[in-house]
Amino acid sequence: MKTANVKAFGTKATDAPLKEMTIDRRDVTAKDIEIEILYCGVCHSDLHTARNDWGFTVYPSVPGHEIVGRVTKVGSEVTRLKVGDIAGVGCLVDSCQTCESCKKDLEQYCLTGFTGTYGSADKHLGGFTFGGYSEKIVVDEHFVLKVPSNLDLAAVAPLLCAGITTWSPLRHWNVTKGSKVAVVGLGGLGHMAIKLAKGLGAEVTLFSRSPGKEKDALVLGADAVIISTDSNQMNSVSGKFDLIIDTVPYVHDVNPYVATLNISGTLVLVGYLGGLEPFLNTVPMILGRKSIAGSLIGGIAETQEMLDFCGKHNIVSEIEIIKMQDINEAYERMLKSDVKYRFVIDMASLKE
Amino acid sequence: MKTANVKAFGTKATDAPLKEMTIDRRDVTAKDIEIEILYCGVCHSDLHTARNDWGFTVYPSVPGHEIVGRVTKVGSEVTRLKVGDIAGVGCLVDSCQTCESCKKDLEQYCLTGFTGTYGSADKHLGGFTFGGYSEKIVVDEHFVLKVPSNLDLAAVAPLLCAGITTWSPLRHWNVTKGSKVAVVGLGGLGHMAIKLAKGLGAEVTLFSRSPGKEKDALVLGADAVIISTDSNQMNSVSGKFDLIIDTVPYVHDVNPYVATLNISGTLVLVGYLGGLEPFLNTVPMILGRKSIAGSLIGGIAETQEMLDFCGKHNIVSEIEIIKMQDINEAYERMLKSDVKYRFVIDMASLKE
Ligand SMILES: NC(=O)c1ccc[n+]([C@@H]2O[C@H](COP(=O)([O-])OP(=O)(O)OC[C@H]3O[C@@H](n4cnc5c(N)ncnc54)[C@H](OP(=O)(O)O)[C@@H]3O)[C@@H](O)[C@H]2O)c1
Ligand SMILES: NC(=O)c1ccc[n+]([C@@H]2O[C@H](COP(=O)([O-])OP(=O)(O)OC[C@H]3O[C@@H](n4cnc5c(N)ncnc54)[C@H](OP(=O)(O)O)[C@@H]3O)[C@@H](O)[C@H]2O)c1
Ligand SMILES: [Zn+2]
Ligand SMILES: [Zn+2]
Ligand SMILES: [Zn+2]
Ligand SMILES: [Zn+2]
Repeated sequence: MKTANVKAFGTKATDAPLKEMTIDRRDVTAKDIEIEILYCGVCHSDLHTARNDWGFTVYPSVPGHEIVGRVTKVGSEVTRLKVGDIAGVGCLVDSCQTCESCKKDLEQYCLTGFTGTYGSADKHLGGFTFGGYSEKIVVDEHFVLKVPSNLDLAAVAPLLCAGITTWSPLRHWNVTKGSKVAVVGLGGLGHMAIKLAKGLGAEVTLFSRSPGKEKDALVLGADAVIISTDSNQMNSVSGKFDLIIDTVPYVHDVNPYVATLNISGTLVLVGYLGGLEPFLNTVPMILGRKSIAGSLIGGIAETQEMLDFCGKHNIVSEIEIIKMQDINEAYERMLKSDVKYRFVIDMASLKE
Repeated sequence: MKTANVKAFGTKATDAPLKEMTIDRRDVTAKDIEIEILYCGVCHSDLHTARNDWGFTVYPSVPGHEIVGRVTKVGSEVTRLKVGDIAGVGCLVDSCQTCESCKKDLEQYCLTGFTGTYGSADKHLGGFTFGGYSEKIVVDEHFVLKVPSNLDLAAVAPLLCAGITTWSPLRHWNVTKGSKVAVVGLGGLGHMAIKLAKGLGAEVTLFSRSPGKEKDALVLGADAVIISTDSNQMNSVSGKFDLIIDTVPYVHDVNPYVATLNISGTLVLVGYLGGLEPFLNTVPMILGRKSIAGSLIGGIAETQEMLDFCGKHNIVSEIEIIKMQDINEAYERMLKSDVKYRFVIDMASLKE
């Protein structure tokens, strides 16, 4: 298979900084689209992966799954986009497209395992997929999104992961006008959850550990902010929420949030992967028919729906543009929750 | 307030056996119905309460909340039943009837706290309510159920708790023809869950620790039985179920059951109250949009719906009739899972 060398940024070991490297991209097959990457958002999952927090990273690792770019080449059978179009790519670049999940447009739950934008077995070239911290990418057109033309391209990039990951549970759990929604953690996912829930007409509350983010949260659309370390503030929202989206990346006690769910409410974990420590107490769950759930990104059709919704409602991410060369510093700042509220890499910097 | 002495069976301490005692019942108020108790089912919650497993028992304690009897007196404003009718009483005897939950017929989630049939503050007499291990009971008509006339009365009694507690989650999580439902534990709740899920058209699997119950489970309507201690059998149902109803009364690892949920499936805990030990792993929940939920009995309208459904489909409990005096031995047998599948007390024995 014909391939081309492209510049990328990645890491070769858990404790190594990211630096420039060269990777291969396949030439387009009949169904592929080649995209010159203009912007790539920086997700906390990129950091988890680069540092092998989840234990399944394969090195070298090139993260990045919030990709916006320009179509530079299309395969002979491609119909949805053409050269010159603006295109988006999120966390998925392939799936079986035939299983029960794929048939329901839930490619993220493909029963044979989806192909992630980075770190998954590469069906075309062997080895593992490389993500958006690179000059270009080649993706099956089914997994390429159309980007609304009215939105700022750099600020659209985070919609491809942070946006869809919060949109999908909002939609699955039927958030609508008047729903009472809370969001735990004001980072990349959290700030999108606020904007999207607000866009859907919900009353939105932010839970944050960080005094100092209150004003921002209100500007982003939150109706209220609760500092989660203040038990009086926590008690003031006891039994309130229909849906809580918990974006916290690390282990934390979810029991205090369960207490803030209304009867039949659901707390959806999208951040932390691991054992729920301390023990999840079933008493309030049984006495109030409450649920704890998980949710993973979103399907392709749902991602397009979210992008179209954002186009219509003028919703984008709040971003800080960085150069590719600043990625290691950006990770350190992300670890300190010092992002307002998503880093986006201007990929032109990689050509410098 | 006028009261009458009635015979009952109860306990005065955690480690004391149940024995005969005398309790007061109020005379009917305008909205009350007085019922001569014919049969009372024996729920594992009776045992938890008698022995203070949950730490909130008040003594003396008279358990029993699966009550079927004959109306012996009605208040002046009672319209739904008349003297001589057969009536049922379940776990609830009062609630505020004005809160958001009560307005939605979810009296079990009354925001001011429902009055349980036993062990709750008694609004009329002071002290605490006494349950169905007694000659008669007086209950607000709103909390009295009509019993279908075609069913065996002793075998109806367990529907009032075991029936509604499994019916409510089956309905809330939309079990219908073709749904794949599993039930954990073949006891009082478990065997009703099988019958009711089957009645709703689901494909039903039983998880049991107890080899030897397979044949019974199939007779009850299960399509398959999985011995939960056999990992090969557990693996054979990986990713299968839309809904699991877990009736196990004591702490147990739910992670192996989460593995058997389908994408977007829900495991509903109705048995165990406490911390989920070992830690609940969020990884399969996030990767498969799975939920863990709790559920508490059911509302009054829903209980009537369930009774009417049972009347129509000829569904009752599988019971072993005991005398009131055998209750302590029955508890011991329940602890050994040696019940097929619900003890029901013939309350005539209390008159002996
Ligand atoms: N399920 C999915 O499909 C999916 C998709 C994308 C990302 N993720 C995961 O979602 C998580 C969030 O990603 P992100 O990009 O939004 O991260 P982020 O920008 O770093 O935001 C996370 C926020 O969580 C709060 N937080 C951070 N550390 C915490 C701790 N130790 N305890 C309590 N709160 C803490 C902070 O908010 P405050 O300062 O307001 O407290 C922080 O801003 C990551 O774990 C990521 O891997 C999951
Ligand atoms: N949420 C509610 O509203 C509600 C209402 C009523 C009752 N409850 C609770 O639901 C639970 C079940 O009540 P029940 O009356 O059905 O009890 P039960 O008749 O004793 O049945 C429980 C079944 O669970 C299994 N089991 C028992 N001990 C176990 C253990 N240590 N580990 C694993 N499995 C075990 C056994 O089935 P196998 O032999 O098949 O394994 C047993 O038959 C009790 O805790 C009760 O308090 C809750
Ligand atoms: Zn991401
Ligand atoms: Zn698939
Ligand atoms: Zn019960
Ligand atoms: Zn109420």
